[in-house]
Amino acid sequence: MVYFREKVVKRLDKTRLRDAILNAKERNAALVIKNANIVNVFTEEIVFGDVAIRNGMILGVGSYSGKEEIDAEGAFLCPGLIDGHVHIESSMAHPSRFADCILQQGTTSIIADPHEIANVCGADGIQYMLDQSEWLPLNVYMMIPSCVPCTSFETSGAKLVAKDMEQFLSHPRVLGLGEVMDSFAVTSGDGEMLDKLQLFADRPIDGHIPLLSGDLLNAYCMAGPQTDHECCNFDEVKEKLGDGIHIHLRLGSACRGVEEIMRQIADSKLPTRRMLFCTDDKHLENIREEGHINYILRRAVANGIPAMQAVQMATINAAETYRLPRVGAIAPGYRADLVLFDNLTDFNAKLVVAGGKVFAREKDKLIKPDPVIYNSVHLAPRKPDCLCLRVTGDMPIINAVQDELLTTLSIEPVQSRDGLFVPDGGLLKLAVLERHHDSGHIGLGIMRGFTLKDGAVATTVGHDSHNLVVAGDNDADMLRAIDLLEECGGGFVIVSRGETLARLPLPVAGLMSDAPLDDIIAAQQNLLTSLRSIGDWQGSDPFIWLSFVALPVLPDVRLTDMGVFDVRKMEFMK
Amino acid sequence: MVYFREKVVKRLDKTRLRDAILNAKERNAALVIKNANIVNVFTEEIVFGDVAIRNGMILGVGSYSGKEEIDAEGAFLCPGLIDGHVHIESSMAHPSRFADCILQQGTTSIIADPHEIANVCGADGIQYMLDQSEWLPLNVYMMIPSCVPCTSFETSGAKLVAKDMEQFLSHPRVLGLGEVMDSFAVTSGDGEMLDKLQLFADRPIDGHIPLLSGDLLNAYCMAGPQTDHECCNFDEVKEKLGDGIHIHLRLGSACRGVEEIMRQIADSKLPTRRMLFCTDDKHLENIREEGHINYILRRAVANGIPAMQAVQMATINAAETYRLPRVGAIAPGYRADLVLFDNLTDFNAKLVVAGGKVFAREKDKLIKPDPVIYNSVHLAPRKPDCLCLRVTGDMPIINAVQDELLTTLSIEPVQSRDGLFVPDGGLLKLAVLERHHDSGHIGLGIMRGFTLKDGAVATTVGHDSHNLVVAGDNDADMLRAIDLLEECGGGFVIVSRGETLARLPLPVAGLMSDAPLDDIIAAQQNLLTSLRSIGDWQGSDPFIWLSFVALPVLPDVRLTDMGVFDVRKMEFMK
Repeated sequence: MVYFREKVVKRLDKTRLRDAILNAKERNAALVIKNANIVNVFTEEIVFGDVAIRNGMILGVGSYSGKEEIDAEGAFLCPGLIDGHVHIESSMAHPSRFADCILQQGTTSIIADPHEIANVCGADGIQYMLDQSEWLPLNVYMMIPSCVPCTSFETSGAKLVAKDMEQFLSHPRVLGLGEVMDSFAVTSGDGEMLDKLQLFADRPIDGHIPLLSGDLLNAYCMAGPQTDHECCNFDEVKEKLGDGIHIHLRLGSACRGVEEIMRQIADSKLPTRRMLFCTDDKHLENIREEGHINYILRRAVANGIPAMQAVQMATINAAETYRLPRVGAIAPGYRADLVLFDNLTDFNAKLVVAGGKVFAREKDKLIKPDPVIYNSVHLAPRKPDCLCLRVTGDMPIINAVQDELLTTLSIEPVQSRDGLFVPDGGLLKLAVLERHHDSGHIGLGIMRGFTLKDGAVATTVGHDSHNLVVAGDNDADMLRAIDLLEECGGGFVIVSRGETLARLPLPVAGLMSDAPLDDIIAAQQNLLTSLRSIGDWQGSDPFIWLSFVALPVLPDVRLTDMGVFDVRKMEFMK
Repeated sequence: MVYFREKVVKRLDKTRLRDAILNAKERNAALVIKNANIVNVFTEEIVFGDVAIRNGMILGVGSYSGKEEIDAEGAFLCPGLIDGHVHIESSMAHPSRFADCILQQGTTSIIADPHEIANVCGADGIQYMLDQSEWLPLNVYMMIPSCVPCTSFETSGAKLVAKDMEQFLSHPRVLGLGEVMDSFAVTSGDGEMLDKLQLFADRPIDGHIPLLSGDLLNAYCMAGPQTDHECCNFDEVKEKLGDGIHIHLRLGSACRGVEEIMRQIADSKLPTRRMLFCTDDKHLENIREEGHINYILRRAVANGIPAMQAVQMATINAAETYRLPRVGAIAPGYRADLVLFDNLTDFNAKLVVAGGKVFAREKDKLIKPDPVIYNSVHLAPRKPDCLCLRVTGDMPIINAVQDELLTTLSIEPVQSRDGLFVPDGGLLKLAVLERHHDSGHIGLGIMRGFTLKDGAVATTVGHDSHNLVVAGDNDADMLRAIDLLEECGGGFVIVSRGETLARLPLPVAGLMSDAPLDDIIAAQQNLLTSLRSIGDWQGSDPFIWLSFVALPVLPDVRLTDMGVFDVRKMEFMK
């Protein structure tokens, strides 16, 4: 777990500012990183020298001596990395656990969107995330979720209108409006949506517009959003960039098509100054395994983007997009957030400095996380036949697309017994249960994408309303999985023939665990191993896919607690 | 004179926003610029096509038809140009006259610093400039002057502390804090200066730091200013850029050394994304003759900077530096500020669109300027011997440096009669009279830089306190020149042997004229012709030099109403 330092300082008070000015003038360094190859993202040069630090700020670059000195031995010193768009909740770790995990990789600032917890707990959830990140060594900036609920085609735990958001405008770490997913509401001029856009008109506003193009894209741009992290191909990147949109290249646990886009950016020499990196959703074990923003850097360079441009994308470009003061560069007056890399190809972090303190060595100052949101799972009692799905001719099938969150819709004949669907031939039953208001709403559907034999998998992480999603080949195991999640306040569970194969409790809003990182990762690995013992799949992790199958803004077809939803037509299927 | 349109809209209200969104979606254009080579500053491509406009905004780029169509015939359509730092007062024209002059050249937005009028009239002067620019087709953004007075080594008309500035923070066109010239106050941690920097800590803050370098530059950066427009050479540009400072390349009426800097930027391929253009101070006749920001574009390209980069510097780079929303690019949702150029070498403006209206054709909608500040010249009565300068050995001489505002100091023997200085051998007498508070303060000195024969030249434009500056070779003509300026409320005057050779009255704060552009320019030309008839000089216009000789932040030596000031030592000379 991470140490906690003095409160994150967004603005130096007068006394501290005077100290910092005089310390810079008089070369009074507390910490000096010596003999580094220092990456200057402004001049695009690498300069050999020292970086002097005090008051949590960079005093200067040049030749310095200081109270404490660290010899970089010629390694490459970069500004601390910035994740331009991330849902902490997707890591399933409490913010302090998450900070520990990504600081080790050199990420020192994140633009967090507490969209998930807001859909479960409303404004209280946003305030919870602000409070829980207040004393972290990681700079946690926040965007206020714009789509709670995401659409009117699902039941969320809370609803946020513009008036509910005003309370957050004066918070020093609140930057703007979070990803505006409901592009239909935007381009049709929906009043509630316009109120939110107006409230944040002078601030950064994140977009979320997979495949939007042409006149609809023009209308969306007119409304105010300034970023997009959903581009699926290079042409989409180019059109949106030309329309003034800042492009997030996203490489999280899912959506790995970005590597081809990187290659085409490199080949075409498309300007990258309005491009930045984000993970959006990335699981802890993936971060541990391959890295965080430093992994995206590695892949960008491997795909031909020059290292200097890639570092700019990971640092100053993100800072400029979100208008972050004093962040994203190694220069006097900037926050002393730094990462020392072995080289500019692998980007393995050798040393991380956050807010002027050497991260690894401060680990002993522990404070326990204080997770106060429990009991977010409120399910109505279930009848034994509540998961029965009546077959009335050919049925709509939700087909997973390998390595993508997109789905395709097919209409096919299916197996049935007594008029009820029987999972068979690669098809599974899928159910989404409303879990916030004891309403008893259950949406039922059929999916193809991974297989299960005599079992069920269930989760309360079901973007974006985070209802309970369960898939299985028999109702008994599905019902048992639901019971198990209700019992532990949410999380993930795998059941086979009535037995619990694996479970990861997520008591904080049914989304996050307050357990140590290693325990969370071990539980996740156990989930995957157990799933592999009764199931099969190609490409990325079925848990991620399940967590997005209820999100009615992603093409082509979804299942919510209200039923099977055709995203292209924006209507429920009969 | 310019037409006045509806109030400058910084933020669309809800109804207008909905209209704009739906018009973009439905392709309802009011005005279409057809068949243009459209410069996209984001993708760095030039695309042939049409630009659709309505509600003062760009609806989209592509193939459009509209109510009104203008055929660009393949000419190059750029975003309207942005002057990143300008003192309107230096044009000596009322804001509406100034707007008319620069809109013709394709400049559609300016970051104005009402530093001059604030030094004369205080907060009332700033409010006056905001009011007088409220209804202009030009986007006039303002920075609040930080140095009123500029230093404590001169007497200004007003003093502004942080508390006086708070009233302007909520004005939609006020961006940040104006050029922080008193770098000594900044780097020594002066309390009043820190209060101002703190007040604007989250906003753009302009710097002003000729030749500042090393530890002092680091300390200055720590304090918060983010731009500089005073770089004298390429090394200075490079050091400051590397420290995170946005670099203004300034090309106004004075300070023309920037062309060499442009050549070195082009040769070294130094990144230009944090560079922008400004005029700072440029006279109307120079704007008419050679252009405004389009002239800087022309010179940048002539000096080897690629046209696309140069256009970015003139548009989106400035918008990003000052965080201007929806300005600086041709993209959906951006303000319809556009300029059509013959080519990307000469940058002659063929058509200018400001706020969606074709500029030239709207000229008939006239409103008279409403200049309400008069009578700013308050001089104490003068005795006949008030300009006598006693010689006490070798005397300090203020030497002009050709084409620069810098001066050098020399200590030399001078001619005297009865112990009093007699102008001779290329030396002139120089006097600065306090003109705001009837104090009777007069600073006396000796200068070398231009010659006068039997005459005197005087002005109330004397940066930054705008006291009355007069130079001459005899006291009688100097005294007469002072009387003449007192009589007309300030301006410029040339006297020879008791006769008025030329006069330009500037009744608005002693700085600006409400007369038509042609009249102002004619009077300025008459001033120069008349000065030429009794004097001689090399390089730039002596009026500009005289207007800066009282500014005690420019090296090496100055004359204020308090005496001869050694800028290097920051003290008055004995």
